[in-house]
Amino acid sequence: MSDLTTLTNGILSGRYRALARAISMIERDDPESERLLAELYPSTGRARIIGITGSPGSGKSTLVNALAKHYRAQEKRVGIVAVDPTSPFTGGAILGDRIRMSELYTDRGVFIRSMATRGFLGGLAKATNDVVDVLDASGFDVVLVETVGVGQDEVEVVRTVQTNLVVLVPGMGDDIQAIKAGIMEIGDIFVVNKADRPGADKTVTEVTMMMSLVEEHGDYIPPIVKTVASKNQGVVELAAAIEKHLDYLKSSGELDRRNRERVRIRIETMLKEKFMDRLIGGTLSRSDYEQLLEHVVHKRNNPHDAAIELLSRVKF
Amino acid sequence: MSDLTTLTNGILSGRYRALARAISMIERDDPESERLLAELYPSTGRARIIGITGSPGSGKSTLVNALAKHYRAQEKRVGIVAVDPTSPFTGGAILGDRIRMSELYTDRGVFIRSMATRGFLGGLAKATNDVVDVLDASGFDVVLVETVGVGQDEVEVVRTVQTNLVVLVPGMGDDIQAIKAGIMEIGDIFVVNKADRPGADKTVTEVTMMMSLVEEHGDYIPPIVKTVASKNQGVVELAAAIEKHLDYLKSSGELDRRNRERVRIRIETMLKEKFMDRLIGGTLSRSDYEQLLEHVVHKRNNPHDAAIELLSRVKF
Repeated sequence: MSDLTTLTNGILSGRYRALARAISMIERDDPESERLLAELYPSTGRARIIGITGSPGSGKSTLVNALAKHYRAQEKRVGIVAVDPTSPFTGGAILGDRIRMSELYTDRGVFIRSMATRGFLGGLAKATNDVVDVLDASGFDVVLVETVGVGQDEVEVVRTVQTNLVVLVPGMGDDIQAIKAGIMEIGDIFVVNKADRPGADKTVTEVTMMMSLVEEHGDYIPPIVKTVASKNQGVVELAAAIEKHLDYLKSSGELDRRNRERVRIRIETMLKEKFMDRLIGGTLSRSDYEQLLEHVVHKRNNPHDAAIELLSRVKF
Repeated sequence: MSDLTTLTNGILSGRYRALARAISMIERDDPESERLLAELYPSTGRARIIGITGSPGSGKSTLVNALAKHYRAQEKRVGIVAVDPTSPFTGGAILGDRIRMSELYTDRGVFIRSMATRGFLGGLAKATNDVVDVLDASGFDVVLVETVGVGQDEVEVVRTVQTNLVVLVPGMGDDIQAIKAGIMEIGDIFVVNKADRPGADKTVTEVTMMMSLVEEHGDYIPPIVKTVASKNQGVVELAAAIEKHLDYLKSSGELDRRNRERVRIRIETMLKEKFMDRLIGGTLSRSDYEQLLEHVVHKRNNPHDAAIELLSRVKF
């Protein structure tokens, strides 16, 4: 058996060492990882992929912890992918949080992986997406993707999950709510965490008002769920809201639409990347390309004509 | 003279009607707009392009207003591009703000344009970049680009300015500062606006501390400037910091690097777009492409092999 076949089989039978190896390959953008993902692809599509987005301090890692335990109690295998340098899952938060989550680390039904938020050769969003696919193929029933929700890569990550939770906390004041306006549109479910703090109901009202500003919801109106993740309060209700969103995704055809869109983005991203690789450093030498850039920088050519010139090197 | 030549000449001689027409062409992604931008390109590169990023409520529009007046007092022509639906420049804010800024609207040395934050066919970042180029070619000495700084498009917009101001306000609390961590890296200058409010010095300290978390600054350490934009306080100091940043950009070679990167992004964006247009709906019919997608969605093929198959339609 080839090395790749061994690795593929290892992942498909849920071996953690194989998972870790595959993810390292994705991280360093190993050319073999593409072949691996192609092999695994037919086995994907079974996991429930849930995004949890919130600022550091919103308690979203504690919420991920609580949700993971909820799904574990149902005998489900849970994958956690943390895309946030301040998350305790990435070792970034205060020690207390990490201790609270330590049970998860010793649970063989849980796989935790943190993604550095920079330095991925192929882009963070693509790498995260690939890791989710590997976990999916490996038979994890639920994959929780924790992101901070600010920045280009993070927004792209959020686009690839099935259901996205936006986590808020009471007492953030008007300014923060205003900032949050930018992420209102990516919330399928809003969670007001730390709901035992004063002002929780006010935050619920504010979110309701902000939602009325978002132009279009279709048939689905995102629910607002109050939780106290550190005390496991509201977690059952939240899991029910997540289930209900899946029902909506299925019955409305939105799940098919999101899957299709996800596939389209993946294919086109790869296609463009391969096209650029073949053209620059291939058909056209890298130094010729640098010279072409130089001409444009010094106004001897313009970007439009430079692009046309580059395209003329290719035959359709 | 052709219509395009007339339009080009109109822009180069700074006629507002020509500017408005050109921007409308960019907005609807008119094929002629590419030709126009190519014609204008040799005349670009003279404007000072400054980004002002901050949440609604930070008073960044008032700061834009104050900076515009500062530059007008120096006889400079000022272009304002607002990429924020809540900005008074886009008609989104409370009436009082708009009245405060009304002088600018009647000043012939000022051109104000708001960009809707969605619905641009070719992408918001590209359209904003194009509008900045048109203003640059038209002889505006300073172009102020106001953005809310959250979301993929906005981050891309910020990448194309020369100097980016990040506007904060006192008393936002820990949570908001944490959220802001995501945008610390895009600040060339930090502005603590509404600095007559309690807690201004605390915010300055917090920003200083957060900056120490950002891994790399090079030789340049972003200054923190306190302003009360509504009273024109600190505006002269801010303008001085902006000048100083330009000195740094020039002496370090960073300006060349940013210009070159901007050119590279423009060329590659256009190239990829043209490549996809030629391939899909051209070499490959749209329905054949949809069928190929369908195969992948239903696991009869995988994204990787689909991308390879698409690329094989092209000869390098």
